[in-house]
Amino acid sequence: MSVPSGARTRLDPEARREQLLGLGVELLSTRDLDELSIDLLAEKAGISRGLLYHYFGNKQEFHEAVVRRAAADLIAVTAPVDDPDLGTRLLVSLDRYLAFVEHNHRGYVSLVRAANGSNSVMREIYEEARGALTDRIFDTAGTDGLATFGVVDTPAVRMMVRAWAVMVEDVVVRWVADPVGVGRDDLLATLAAMLAHAAQSAPPSA
Amino acid sequence: MSVPSGARTRLDPEARREQLLGLGVELLSTRDLDELSIDLLAEKAGISRGLLYHYFGNKQEFHEAVVRRAAADLIAVTAPVDDPDLGTRLLVSLDRYLAFVEHNHRGYVSLVRAANGSNSVMREIYEEARGALTDRIFDTAGTDGLATFGVVDTPAVRMMVRAWAVMVEDVVVRWVADPVGVGRDDLLATLAAMLAHAAQSAPPSA
Repeated sequence: MSVPSGARTRLDPEARREQLLGLGVELLSTRDLDELSIDLLAEKAGISRGLLYHYFGNKQEFHEAVVRRAAADLIAVTAPVDDPDLGTRLLVSLDRYLAFVEHNHRGYVSLVRAANGSNSVMREIYEEARGALTDRIFDTAGTDGLATFGVVDTPAVRMMVRAWAVMVEDVVVRWVADPVGVGRDDLLATLAAMLAHAAQSAPPSA
Repeated sequence: MSVPSGARTRLDPEARREQLLGLGVELLSTRDLDELSIDLLAEKAGISRGLLYHYFGNKQEFHEAVVRRAAADLIAVTAPVDDPDLGTRLLVSLDRYLAFVEHNHRGYVSLVRAANGSNSVMREIYEEARGALTDRIFDTAGTDGLATFGVVDTPAVRMMVRAWAVMVEDVVVRWVADPVGVGRDDLLATLAAMLAHAAQSAPPSA
């Protein structure tokens, strides 16, 4: 009986904080952000509210930390796999993104709402994550990879790829709530094909 | 001197309320929604705060009414023109949408944030407007119009057209803030072409 407790107390504060954030993200998968209180986390983690306030300051900072962690999780989980084929790498990342939203639907919708809402800190966190996700597409493809699609990296192309990502977000959240008869693989194939098209149809930039 | 005052008092309450909402939307064009207070509207309209509270109840209801009115304005201003060519009708509507965002950038961004945020009434108002805008595309094109693009009206096609509209919203708001060297006409042509492509690449639905 003393082993788990001993293991827990051996964690340094940073690791303990990360563990609590992981629990926060997990709790968020079936809840709105508004319903994720310090009280709930304290109860689920079996520690005092006082200690949680010590780690997170206040509810707003706690929510920001959870959103930051969820964004980091999303970036990590969709990281490109080691496959020589660009199309395969894209499909695998899209598949993992879709799985992430499927498993965290309510929390993800709540995150996206918080991220698009009026709170500027939340917006910034998510905007940064979206930026990282689209920048990674260019890093992963590389100049040669883009060239196979007849695409050159310009600000206009980045703008269109960013817009594609926003579109994917909308389609995926909507599809998880109501698939309207569309199969999972067909959805992924469509979204992947639209990326190339969005990049290819970018307007010329002076 | 008595004429404008006389003209004003002759307005029935409904017309007066509409006039005040019009002023609210106008004030919003250069302000965030948060900055649009009953006090400011009272000052600009030259009437008492008490009378405004009589019309709008409270700040939240006032904001909802302004957002509702802005959404109605957006739907009205982008209404399809009377041109036999589908492509022309689409380009004119897109052009007017872009002009609307150009002239109301700050207020529009604030509206979109409120609409995507956590307030469910705001979300519903804007979601309805988005739904009306995309439904109108199908009504305007008609079955024959869709057929010229090889498109049949299915839930999956509606999902993709809805996603296209979200993409347009993102691109336009971004482009107005920073055109990244892209010309206005090129942007409009790209967005128009992407609608057909989005509809055509809808996944099959069972």
